[in-house]
Amino acid sequence: MKMTMSQKILAAHAGRESVSPGELVMAKLDLVLANDITAPVAINEYRKAGAGCVFDCQKIALVMDHFTPNKDIKAAEQTKKVRDFAAEKGIVNYFDVGTVGIEHALLPERGLVVAGDLVIGADSHTCTYGALGAFSTGVGSTDMAVGMAYGKAWFKVPRAMKFNLRGKLRQWVSGKDVILHIIGKIGVDGALYKSMEFAGPGVAALSMDDRLCICNMAIEAGAKNGIFPVDDKTLQYIADHSQKKPVVFAADDDAEYDEVMDIDLGSIGSTVAFPHLPSNTRTFADMPEVKIDQVVIGSCTNGRLSDLQIAAKILKGHKIHPRVRTIIFPATQKIYLQAMKEGLLEIFVEAGAAVSTPTCGPCLGGHMGILAKGERALATTNRNFVGRMGHPESEVYLASPEVAAASALTGVITDPATL
Amino acid sequence: MKMTMSQKILAAHAGRESVSPGELVMAKLDLVLANDITAPVAINEYRKAGAGCVFDCQKIALVMDHFTPNKDIKAAEQTKKVRDFAAEKGIVNYFDVGTVGIEHALLPERGLVVAGDLVIGADSHTCTYGALGAFSTGVGSTDMAVGMAYGKAWFKVPRAMKFNLRGKLRQWVSGKDVILHIIGKIGVDGALYKSMEFAGPGVAALSMDDRLCICNMAIEAGAKNGIFPVDDKTLQYIADHSQKKPVVFAADDDAEYDEVMDIDLGSIGSTVAFPHLPSNTRTFADMPEVKIDQVVIGSCTNGRLSDLQIAAKILKGHKIHPRVRTIIFPATQKIYLQAMKEGLLEIFVEAGAAVSTPTCGPCLGGHMGILAKGERALATTNRNFVGRMGHPESEVYLASPEVAAASALTGVITDPATL
Repeated sequence: MKMTMSQKILAAHAGRESVSPGELVMAKLDLVLANDITAPVAINEYRKAGAGCVFDCQKIALVMDHFTPNKDIKAAEQTKKVRDFAAEKGIVNYFDVGTVGIEHALLPERGLVVAGDLVIGADSHTCTYGALGAFSTGVGSTDMAVGMAYGKAWFKVPRAMKFNLRGKLRQWVSGKDVILHIIGKIGVDGALYKSMEFAGPGVAALSMDDRLCICNMAIEAGAKNGIFPVDDKTLQYIADHSQKKPVVFAADDDAEYDEVMDIDLGSIGSTVAFPHLPSNTRTFADMPEVKIDQVVIGSCTNGRLSDLQIAAKILKGHKIHPRVRTIIFPATQKIYLQAMKEGLLEIFVEAGAAVSTPTCGPCLGGHMGILAKGERALATTNRNFVGRMGHPESEVYLASPEVAAASALTGVITDPATL
Repeated sequence: MKMTMSQKILAAHAGRESVSPGELVMAKLDLVLANDITAPVAINEYRKAGAGCVFDCQKIALVMDHFTPNKDIKAAEQTKKVRDFAAEKGIVNYFDVGTVGIEHALLPERGLVVAGDLVIGADSHTCTYGALGAFSTGVGSTDMAVGMAYGKAWFKVPRAMKFNLRGKLRQWVSGKDVILHIIGKIGVDGALYKSMEFAGPGVAALSMDDRLCICNMAIEAGAKNGIFPVDDKTLQYIADHSQKKPVVFAADDDAEYDEVMDIDLGSIGSTVAFPHLPSNTRTFADMPEVKIDQVVIGSCTNGRLSDLQIAAKILKGHKIHPRVRTIIFPATQKIYLQAMKEGLLEIFVEAGAAVSTPTCGPCLGGHMGILAKGERALATTNRNFVGRMGHPESEVYLASPEVAAASALTGVITDPATL
């Protein structure tokens, strides 16, 4: 039985030689993740089920990132519930204000996920870790509770699509444009319950941050997971960040894919997803003038160091358009610190941006940058559903940090190549 | 008729030779201030009254600082209302995300208030500007609306108390300890509707930041205003920050005070206000062990550069206690930038603190650090009423940045002198 990379990881964790698409398997987990929104629900289920010890106090990550620093009393009660649970169960990887970062940026940075891992997280963008050659996917809080107690979860083995990458990205084009381009082609259900497996000679030229960004948004095409092959870059990243030993799985040459899509990275231009779907994409060849009120640079999609570096390169020495409230969220404390040391945060504040401590903040309409009726934001985040960032009659446009920085300067959605 | 400093400023702005305590006078205003909570109410009243142009588009300051970056849709709608009003009326001093700071730190920094000014603000801590030798006081949103339309407000001329300062503050003791000490002595209604006039040889040794902190909390003793005499430090500060010409008023030697209190600055120790009143003060001579869950350093009271400098001095090279969520809010973008350039923010993040973009945030239970039931915060803010920072069963302890930084390290309220 020939298998895809994702199927191989599932088989290995299910203790099976092979698995077939559509099969239900029970598999051992390497990491179980939840945040301040989903962990409290999981903890309620955990207690209801009368579960005692957790399966492994090293293999659970609880990241307080969505409504932190605590937005309101409800948020404070939620984080307290998780904090108390972590203390009671001896859970090591509990992250709060001061140590926190956005979960999907934090876990790879802390070396908690490596190649070959099987990870579930009670957050849809858990698919991010596919960039490291792991199988990772979002689950509901009940599965998360079971995962914490037993270290296992059930999976329906996914079918797969293959994205054959070749060529090299042009200047001012990055991972975000690649995934928006793909979602624009296949639609928000284009990869429904499938693995999006990236492959081909183009992979080598993509940075780890590009790959993390691309896998992060696999869920926006409906995918079960996104995954990249493990190469030297991956292994170097893991060696730099983790004590854990990676296990490398590779797809069989003749693994079965529902579809194989060839993508010339060099042909992709800066891409913007218009309201109200990530698939509603346009390039600057076909872009009306869109005035914006707010720019958000950050999130688990594009709050990494290279995102801040490129935004700073564009903003340096310039002033942000007076109409545009620009809020920049480094994704972790480590990234915040490094960006400060490199002078990036200074460039942002000099330009007139607000720099926040790491938080998911406005990405999910949480706090720290919510939109009023009729307002428009250009954001490097991952979703632009109706009301995602505030009022149901507000609008969110998704783009790369390059486009976001350029647009902050002009007040309209702007091609960074034209600055 | 002999007058206090405050009475002289009122008389001058009422076009009168003299005024007497208890008299009602109508006086011309030099600045009218509101924020994102109070301006929307004032704008409603302004429109209801059918007022057209504002009295002077240079003399109104609208500072979006309390729930910004927008906490939620309601906050977004509130700031939008003020933004639209400012644009419609051509109000120059509108401050939003990226240009914002906490109002009472921002206005002196921008040179919008100088000695001799008469200022009203729809915020109780408007009394801060007395540090510059101005008469400034908090008003309701209706008076603020009238102020915006006509540039005038009515005042009942206040009686006064005199605080004769001598000596010099000890190490690790600052303005916050002085004002907490005084409020501890006289109570939260100790200066009810009176001017707190500071005087004496001790004034010279107090920094402008100390004086701003002291006047900021005059309202916590019930005072109408707090005010410092104008000396070389004041004039230098004004010259460094403002294009406006200061006008120096001095109290008559035989002005009438209800009470004169002598205070030896050298005798004041680090002082903490216990729940639930700023007057419920203790020093470390008489301090039980109090475990804390959160430390907040910032606010219009103690978010200035010198506050961050002293906190950094204490935190440098150390790690914050793992139980203590520590959130640091530089009071303005300029302070944030300067603190970054001086390496203070790096020290904070290395120590394990979160550094936020300027906002009033948790001080008023707004957002960005709200407490759950049973939690305790030590904060450099100005009020510790029941539920001020979150749940009605949470507690707030008020202290200096010195005490706050020391306590962040140990997890219990700690005398910085003992570190």
